[in-house]
Amino acid sequence: IDNNDKHALLDLMKDIHYADVAEIIDELNLDEATYLIKLLESKKTSDVLTELDEGIRDRILENLTAKEIADEIRELDTDDAADIISELPDERREEVISYIDDHEHAKDIVELLRYDEDTAGGLMAKELVKVNENWTVLNCIGEMRAQAENVTRVHSIYVVDDNEKLLGRLSLKDLLTASTKSAIKDVYIRKVDYVSVHETAEEVARIMAKYDLEAIPVVDETNRLVGRITIDDIVDVIRDEAERDYNMAAGISGDIEAKDSILKLTKARLPWLLIGTFGGMMAAGIISSFQEGMGDYIILLSFVPLIQATAGNVGVQSSAIVVQGLANDSIDGEIMGRLFKEFLLALVNGGSIAFLVLLISHFGFGTEYLISATIGIAIISVIIIAAIIGTFIPIFLDKKGIDPAVATGPFITTSNDIFGILVYFSIAKLILGF
Amino acid sequence: IDNNDKHALLDLMKDIHYADVAEIIDELNLDEATYLIKLLESKKTSDVLTELDEGIRDRILENLTAKEIADEIRELDTDDAADIISELPDERREEVISYIDDHEHAKDIVELLRYDEDTAGGLMAKELVKVNENWTVLNCIGEMRAQAENVTRVHSIYVVDDNEKLLGRLSLKDLLTASTKSAIKDVYIRKVDYVSVHETAEEVARIMAKYDLEAIPVVDETNRLVGRITIDDIVDVIRDEAERDYNMAAGISGDIEAKDSILKLTKARLPWLLIGTFGGMMAAGIISSFQEGMGDYIILLSFVPLIQATAGNVGVQSSAIVVQGLANDSIDGEIMGRLFKEFLLALVNGGSIAFLVLLISHFGFGTEYLISATIGIAIISVIIIAAIIGTFIPIFLDKKGIDPAVATGPFITTSNDIFGILVYFSIAKLILGF
Repeated sequence: IDNNDKHALLDLMKDIHYADVAEIIDELNLDEATYLIKLLESKKTSDVLTELDEGIRDRILENLTAKEIADEIRELDTDDAADIISELPDERREEVISYIDDHEHAKDIVELLRYDEDTAGGLMAKELVKVNENWTVLNCIGEMRAQAENVTRVHSIYVVDDNEKLLGRLSLKDLLTASTKSAIKDVYIRKVDYVSVHETAEEVARIMAKYDLEAIPVVDETNRLVGRITIDDIVDVIRDEAERDYNMAAGISGDIEAKDSILKLTKARLPWLLIGTFGGMMAAGIISSFQEGMGDYIILLSFVPLIQATAGNVGVQSSAIVVQGLANDSIDGEIMGRLFKEFLLALVNGGSIAFLVLLISHFGFGTEYLISATIGIAIISVIIIAAIIGTFIPIFLDKKGIDPAVATGPFITTSNDIFGILVYFSIAKLILGF
Repeated sequence: IDNNDKHALLDLMKDIHYADVAEIIDELNLDEATYLIKLLESKKTSDVLTELDEGIRDRILENLTAKEIADEIRELDTDDAADIISELPDERREEVISYIDDHEHAKDIVELLRYDEDTAGGLMAKELVKVNENWTVLNCIGEMRAQAENVTRVHSIYVVDDNEKLLGRLSLKDLLTASTKSAIKDVYIRKVDYVSVHETAEEVARIMAKYDLEAIPVVDETNRLVGRITIDDIVDVIRDEAERDYNMAAGISGDIEAKDSILKLTKARLPWLLIGTFGGMMAAGIISSFQEGMGDYIILLSFVPLIQATAGNVGVQSSAIVVQGLANDSIDGEIMGRLFKEFLLALVNGGSIAFLVLLISHFGFGTEYLISATIGIAIISVIIIAAIIGTFIPIFLDKKGIDPAVATGPFITTSNDIFGILVYFSIAKLILGF
């Protein structure tokens, strides 16, 4: 398609949603992508840009002049505009902003650039509909028509006083049903949820999801209304957060996708594998130190993978439950109760598994009763210890203010491997006396 | 608090958001909770009920009469009402519905009960604002005032023809800015995203997130507008889905929370642990079959945990990337390219790890060169095989129409444990010739 026929291409693209165009561009090479972005009108491409993969967008932006970027930016809401500009190198940033002829828009974008990406300030947009408490409903409808021009979607109408302080909100429904002569003061709802500009993105997501909000106003330190966050941005925050936790549990750090380069993937994956490598080496040290006096009990070595797999699986399960519970606030971080419950659970699970292992090892492998019993006792102990470590570490990290998700995956499995093997051989030595 | 003073309690609860009341009730015992629900007026408690933990809600509902439940239900949107009624036993269901005096509302709820929970039909609400294409803007505003009474939040106004077929939508903005005399026919937007009642919840979530929609209309087989889904319900779908995938990766099946009973937790966790148990027993079989002829090379057994940990970690990483990629459609399921990339990545990661292991085993454990080399070569092979298995299985399951998330966690680790150990000893036997 991408050779020459401009008109056919324009026709083709006209009816496609910008999110789909972005998907197509993600698949093209850089020259084709830049060509397409330049060809389409900026009303469409600006939205396409917000949907593109960050890496690809950066490279396309490098191929555009500051003026061309400013043209795209002009079409965007302030929050999306600020996101794109924040990725540019410093000098280009200023150049692009100087090309935006709507000074109000430029000022808003510059203001948003001040905030950290992961805070309410970084998520919010300046576009919102606000009315003064002293207006009448009729005033308000007129003013809203004017303001609504700049706002893609009207969510709530916020009511402010003369100092721009947030007082409450007005529902569209009330506005439609109220008499046109009533004063806003008399019809607005004085209760409104809001967040501070410095609130973290995760906390904003939690609040909006909990109270089923579609938009939330953002206020500054003096309670002045400075922006609003809509639920579609929060959907992205929730997805990113879930993806990050999932990756962390699998031993992949950072924002990684299947199509990233091998170098980037290695950087995200190798460090976690190395934790496993060092753990494995420590386990080797433990085993070889026990091995020498082991003599006839060498069969015990065959069950090392069993011990290790069980310890790892139990640890991951326990930590996953705690990490999720902490994330959605359903555990209050009460350590002792949680540990006791995991202990009971480990007893139940461990008992069943130990019984099974006892049967298989005795009848399948023909090990002596004493050895089978040793393995069974060891496996219950290992499961209990693994469950306790898996529960304790995330809660501990959370109390220290560290994201408990780092404690999942290879970190938990590796520490449980080492403890598990140590416990296994110590118990064996105690019982069998080698 | 919960002893006697009704008025103090009512005063206290008056200003608390229903989501917070739900959180308080989750912590109370059953009698206290029922008492509180009966005490508060149903306008508030109905919303509280939707936010409660399912298990707790079921038990509270058992303590209420059908009439009391109907009073709560009356205050709810049809989708939330249907969710609650669907949890009741069959006879009570009909009894409760017979007590709902608004027949329109009751009919809508019964209609929603027909749909599967995990489809668009199960998510949608009947409350929406629709206008006929033949009306004028003035008509439309009047009609909307009437309809809006029943709709908590107005998202979009949908335009239908005389047969209720969905034609397009009208933005509130356009309605506010259009002349009151224009016909709807001339101002509405003919393009509107919609889903069929039978679409899966996950697909609806994908579409709404991709196109940044806040509400989407739902149509039946004949294209008639039957409901709409709002983004707040989708936020729950996205969270549940992420939680389910996360749990699956950790070897926990079903909808499990930290505060569930030990029996429920065991049911969710033990089956996955048993996979590991059987895998461990198979590994024991493999090791003991090689052990006999091993003689001087018994030191090789010490490195089993290393091999196993590495194989497990690599497998989980590879499968996590594929599972996420498939979930958000960023991989197209093209097997060969993906496998080749994982192969290259495994070479890079495997090479670095093997080199490190070589150094540590030689200098730390004083193993002979040949043995160290054996371990090094084995570890590269194991990493490559683990990466390929971890990539292949989820893609394969996805092609077969099975949720690839089942292939993460204990399933991948266990199969990689077994293959890893088999490869390790086979290579060792080949090189060292025992």
